[in-house]
Amino acid sequence: MDCIDLNCDLGESYGAYRLGMDADIIPLISSANVACGFHAGDFNTMAKTAKLCAESGVTIGAHPGYPDLQGFGRRTMALSPAEVQNLITYQLGALDAFCRSVGGKLQHVKPHGALYNMAAKSPELSRAICQGIYAFNPSLILLGLSGSEMLRQAKEIGLPCAAEVFADRAYEEDGTLVARSKPGAMITDEDEAVGRVIGMIRNHRVTAVSGKEIEICPDSVCVHGDSEKALLFVKKIRAALEQEGIAILPLSEIVNR
Amino acid sequence: MDCIDLNCDLGESYGAYRLGMDADIIPLISSANVACGFHAGDFNTMAKTAKLCAESGVTIGAHPGYPDLQGFGRRTMALSPAEVQNLITYQLGALDAFCRSVGGKLQHVKPHGALYNMAAKSPELSRAICQGIYAFNPSLILLGLSGSEMLRQAKEIGLPCAAEVFADRAYEEDGTLVARSKPGAMITDEDEAVGRVIGMIRNHRVTAVSGKEIEICPDSVCVHGDSEKALLFVKKIRAALEQEGIAILPLSEIVNR
Amino acid sequence: MDCIDLNCDLGESYGAYRLGMDADIIPLISSANVACGFHAGDFNTMAKTAKLCAESGVTIGAHPGYPDLQGFGRRTMALSPAEVQNLITYQLGALDAFCRSVGGKLQHVKPHGALYNMAAKSPELSRAICQGIYAFNPSLILLGLSGSEMLRQAKEIGLPCAAEVFADRAYEEDGTLVARSKPGAMITDEDEAVGRVIGMIRNHRVTAVSGKEIEICPDSVCVHGDSEKALLFVKKIRAALEQEGIAILPLSEIVNR
Amino acid sequence: MDCIDLNCDLGESYGAYRLGMDADIIPLISSANVACGFHAGDFNTMAKTAKLCAESGVTIGAHPGYPDLQGFGRRTMALSPAEVQNLITYQLGALDAFCRSVGGKLQHVKPHGALYNMAAKSPELSRAICQGIYAFNPSLILLGLSGSEMLRQAKEIGLPCAAEVFADRAYEEDGTLVARSKPGAMITDEDEAVGRVIGMIRNHRVTAVSGKEIEICPDSVCVHGDSEKALLFVKKIRAALEQEGIAILPLSEIVNR
Repeated sequence: MDCIDLNCDLGESYGAYRLGMDADIIPLISSANVACGFHAGDFNTMAKTAKLCAESGVTIGAHPGYPDLQGFGRRTMALSPAEVQNLITYQLGALDAFCRSVGGKLQHVKPHGALYNMAAKSPELSRAICQGIYAFNPSLILLGLSGSEMLRQAKEIGLPCAAEVFADRAYEEDGTLVARSKPGAMITDEDEAVGRVIGMIRNHRVTAVSGKEIEICPDSVCVHGDSEKALLFVKKIRAALEQEGIAILPLSEIVNR
Repeated sequence: MDCIDLNCDLGESYGAYRLGMDADIIPLISSANVACGFHAGDFNTMAKTAKLCAESGVTIGAHPGYPDLQGFGRRTMALSPAEVQNLITYQLGALDAFCRSVGGKLQHVKPHGALYNMAAKSPELSRAICQGIYAFNPSLILLGLSGSEMLRQAKEIGLPCAAEVFADRAYEEDGTLVARSKPGAMITDEDEAVGRVIGMIRNHRVTAVSGKEIEICPDSVCVHGDSEKALLFVKKIRAALEQEGIAILPLSEIVNR
Repeated sequence: MDCIDLNCDLGESYGAYRLGMDADIIPLISSANVACGFHAGDFNTMAKTAKLCAESGVTIGAHPGYPDLQGFGRRTMALSPAEVQNLITYQLGALDAFCRSVGGKLQHVKPHGALYNMAAKSPELSRAICQGIYAFNPSLILLGLSGSEMLRQAKEIGLPCAAEVFADRAYEEDGTLVARSKPGAMITDEDEAVGRVIGMIRNHRVTAVSGKEIEICPDSVCVHGDSEKALLFVKKIRAALEQEGIAILPLSEIVNR
Repeated sequence: MDCIDLNCDLGESYGAYRLGMDADIIPLISSANVACGFHAGDFNTMAKTAKLCAESGVTIGAHPGYPDLQGFGRRTMALSPAEVQNLITYQLGALDAFCRSVGGKLQHVKPHGALYNMAAKSPELSRAICQGIYAFNPSLILLGLSGSEMLRQAKEIGLPCAAEVFADRAYEEDGTLVARSKPGAMITDEDEAVGRVIGMIRNHRVTAVSGKEIEICPDSVCVHGDSEKALLFVKKIRAALEQEGIAILPLSEIVNR
C-alpha cells in the first residue's frame, strides 16, 4: 500500500505575536516541524506546541533555523559549517527537552528557510547539519528537499533521511524547485496541486516546468497551516489521499518500511 | 573523610566578546556551570566549553539565566513561574545536547544571577525551576544557595540537591548572604576567606556578620575564574583543602555519599 | 471650546509578525505612539509607520519600552535610572530619524508597558525618562498617566507634558488606575466608557471605583487599534465627541492652549 | 599643507562585555566611529562613548552594521536595499540622539564589517546607504573604502564623502583591498605600514600587491584601538605624520578643503 507523511511548520508564535493555526492543523498532519526559538518560536510556545502535539499523537520534529528572528530565518547568512553544526545541536537539544518533558520523543529534523535552501545546494552545510544531528542522536530522521545535497550527505554518514515534496511548487528538470522569482514557480490551481501529489506518490513522477516528466520519490508532503485557505487545502489533500487508498503515516514508519 | 566540590561559572563568552579564563580554570575545579545562551554564552561557546570540560574530565552543569544578554542575567525580570519552568527546560536541553555530542553527561543545574537570587527567596520560582529540571531528567542535581528556598523545593519534589557556599561573601544569622550593598558583605582577606571555607567543611559552622556562629553544611564552594587574581585564589583554596586532607570531588559523588 | 487628543499605540509589527490595524486606525486618531524596536517594532515597521502617519497628517510620538521583545515590554525589569535615561535617548533618536526622513517631526513621547507603569509610581524612573527627553529635545511633550509621578517630574524640570486617560479602565480615588487583577478594573460597557470620557473632558470629573467623584483633567484619551471591535469603538468615541462639539486635536495644540 | 584624518572604530562594548581601549585611543584620533547597538555597542556604551568623545573634542561618526551581535556584524546577511536604508536611518538616529544629548554633533557615517564590504562592491546597497544618510541629514559625510562603489554613489546623489585607506592592508591594482584569505594581504611590518601611509598622503600613490604603483587619494586612515600593540602603532603613525608636517584634522575639515 502506498503511503505518505504530511508535515507542517508549527510553533512559530513569539511572545505576544501569534502565527499559524496550530491547534487546527495538528490533528490533520502526521509530522510537526516545531520552531526552536532562533528564527521563530520561544520557550513558552515550544512548551505549548509540544503539549498540543503529544495530545494529538502527532510526532514532533525540530525545525531549526538561522538566528534571525526579524528575518524569520529567511535571510541568507554566512555562518561557517562549524557554526551551523553548533546551531543545529543547540536547537535540537532545546526542542528535545520539551519533547521529553511531555513524555514524547523527537522524531526528525527539518532545517528552516534560508538554512534549508542553502544546505540543499551546499555539501559543506549539509554535512554540518547531518553531523550535528548524528552526534546528538543518530536515529533522528533528516527531512530534506527531494533530490537535495542534504539527503545525499545524510546517506553518506548513515543518518536516516526522508524526501520532502511540495504540492504548490513547480520543479525544474533536475528535480530542484523553480525559484519563486520565475514565472510558473507556484502551482495555484488546488486540484492540479493535489493531482500532482497523487502522481508523485503513485507513479514516482511529476511534470517539470519544462513539460518533461521527471522521477521523484516523496516520503513527505509539506502543507501549510497559516490561514483558513491553507487549512481547507490540507483537508482537501487528506480527502484525496484517503480516496486513493494512500495511507498517511508518520515519518518513522515511512522511512523504516 | 571530608569532601567538597569546587564549582565555577564558565562558558560566558559571546561571539567576538571574550570573558573568563576557562582553559585555565577548568583543570582546577570539579564542576563547571556552563552558560546556556540566554544571559551569556552562545552555541559556539557552548560547543567549545563542553569539549574543554570533557577533555579535562570536569563534570558539566547547566547555568541557565534570564533572557537578558545586555544585563548579563543580573537584572530582575518579572517572568511567571510557568515561563521560568519553560526557560529552564529550554536551556537544560540546549546544553545537554552539547554534552551528548562530546560523549559527556549533564550532572547538575545552577540557576544564574537574578534568577538564582530571586528563586532563593521565592517558593513559586524555586518550584518552577525544580519542576523544569525534574520533568527533563529527575537525576540531575540542583545546585542552590545553602539554606535557600531552592533547596527546600528540590527536597520536596524529590530532586537531588546540593548546597553552595561562597568563600568571599558574609552571611546573615539566618544563613542568607549579606546584600552586596551592605558594609561587610564581601570577605576581602583571602586567608580569612580560605579559613572560613575550611571551617564550614570541617565544623559545619561559620561566623555570621553579626558575630554569631551559625550552622552551614556546604556541598560546593563557588570560585571565580575571571581574572589572574581569581585564578590564584582558586589555587590557594585547592592547596589549603589538600593540606587539610579534604577531598575535592564532583557534585554527584558529594550528593550520593 | 473643549478639546481632546486621541492617541493609539502603533507600529508594533515585527518582521514577519503582524500586529495592529495601523492603516485603519491612523486616519481616526490625532496622535500615534510608535514602537521603537525594543519591545515591538523594527526598522522596517518604523519606516512604514512614519510614512503612514505623515500621509494622514497624524502627529508622531515615540513609544519607547524595555528591551524585551519576547515580553512585549510588559515584564518588569530592574534597569537603573541611568540605564532608563539611555534607553529613552536611544529610542527617541531612532524614531526621530524616521520622522525626519519622511519630512515629519517628532511631537511627543509616551513610555510603554512596564516602563510606563513603573515610572508612574517612581520619581527616579520618571526623572530619568524626563531628563532623557529634555536633553534630546526640550520641546517634546511627555504623555503620561493622569496624576502620575511622570507628569510631576516633567513639570519640575520644565518639560511640556500631557495627561492620558483610559476609556476602558476604572480609577481609584487617588486617580490611579484600578489594577487589572481587581474586580471592576475594566469598563466593559462601551456606552458607559464613552460617557465617562465625555464627563472627564466636560466636567473634569469621573466616578472612582469606590463610587466617589474625583477630579481628572484629560489631555488625551488612549484608544486601541488591535481588532475590528477596537476600531468600532474608536469610531463610536469620535462620533460622540463630534456630537458634543468637542474638538479632536493633536497633543501640541492641546498642551499649548 | 597635506592633511589626513585618523579614524577608529569605538564603543564596541556590550553589557558586561568590554572591548577596545576607548579612553586611551580617543585622545589620539580625529574621528570616532561609534557602534550603534546592532553589531556591537548598546545604549549605555553609546552614552559613555559620546561623552568621552565630547570631552576630548573628537568628532563622532555613526558606525552602523547588520543586526547580528553574535557575528559582530561580520557575517554576510541578505537584507534588501530597502531594509539596509532603514537600518541606516535607525542607527544614525539613535547615535545622533546621544551626540545631541552631550551637546555634540554627528559628523560622518562609516558602515561596519560585512555591510561595509558588501556595499563597497554593490551599487544597490551603496545607494541605499547613501539615501538613508541623505534623507536623515544631507550634510553628513560618508566615510567609505577608497575607490569603492560607496563613494561613487555618494557623489552621484550629492552626499559629502571621504576615502578611507588602511595602513595594514595590501591593495590590488584596481584599488580594492587584497582579500584577507590571500597571501600578502596584511602589511605586518609597522615601519612599512607607516611609510605606505605617508606615501599615500604625500604622493597619492601606493604599491599594489602586484608590484605596480597605483593612484590613491586618502582622506582618512583607519587605525585600531583594541590592544596595547594597536595603541603603540597609533602613536607611531601620529609621530610620523607630525614629523612629516602632515596635519591631523577631523573629516569635516578634510572634506571641505
